[in-house]
Amino acid sequence: MPKIDLEAIEQSNSTGYPPPFAAAVGGRWVRRLGRHSGLADFGVSHVVLKPGAASSQRHWHEDEDEFVVLLSGEAVLVENEGRTSMRAGDMAAFPKGEPNGHHLVNESEDDCAFLAFGRVPTGDAHYPDIDLRWSGGAYRRKDGSAF
Amino acid sequence: MPKIDLEAIEQSNSTGYPPPFAAAVGGRWVRRLGRHSGLADFGVSHVVLKPGAASSQRHWHEDEDEFVVLLSGEAVLVENEGRTSMRAGDMAAFPKGEPNGHHLVNESEDDCAFLAFGRVPTGDAHYPDIDLRWSGGAYRRKDGSAF
Repeated sequence: MPKIDLEAIEQSNSTGYPPPFAAAVGGRWVRRLGRHSGLADFGVSHVVLKPGAASSQRHWHEDEDEFVVLLSGEAVLVENEGRTSMRAGDMAAFPKGEPNGHHLVNESEDDCAFLAFGRVPTGDAHYPDIDLRWSGGAYRRKDGSAF
Repeated sequence: MPKIDLEAIEQSNSTGYPPPFAAAVGGRWVRRLGRHSGLADFGVSHVVLKPGAASSQRHWHEDEDEFVVLLSGEAVLVENEGRTSMRAGDMAAFPKGEPNGHHLVNESEDDCAFLAFGRVPTGDAHYPDIDLRWSGGAYRRKDGSAF
């Protein structure tokens, strides 16, 4: 059956962020729809953000295109140019290599849900607001030292 | 600005299908969001189906994963196992190589809209209901002859 049955797919709020950067995504609940469905060309994640939760720390990827579409509720897209309200049906694209750190934050009092599309990156990810960098398959401080 | 402004993106109902297979998608209006936004890892199309229109002829790809999410209105997902109603927020995945011909048909009296994700395939696409095959970069009859 090609139609996705969300309830049948495991949901996780795990993160690889080192503390104290993990707290911001504690209320981020992710279902890996692409993997569950047998897709290999790109990843598809269904994400619920509880009130106060962020989709990630604000970041950009050297080598991963990303695309998001809001399914329900509302979120604030925060990026270099400012803050933009996102509601059901609103979409945003983040081409790889553009140094525009971005994330979604649920500042409302209700859950919001969105889909995120991307491919597993091999290159670095940059976090403009905090002392964090993804490099060589691990989170490091900006000076390259391990947590 | 990462947020997508749909109205700023050209919409087209063109198709490469040979007649008489083109008529089914005459009311399919596509915006290439991924290309417009500078994404290269995967394609993102915003598609409006007018009443009576189909997303494509029923087909499956040898080497292209596909994923769709309904944004508004309703459509019927037709595939080997039958017919499934799809509404806003409903999603479906079509892993490459699975011989399950599929398409969406708008049998309602109002427009519906969905997003479709995939990568440009190099292999064949198969059309179980009609004398059509995509092979070697062109539409052909099932016996390989040109239209």
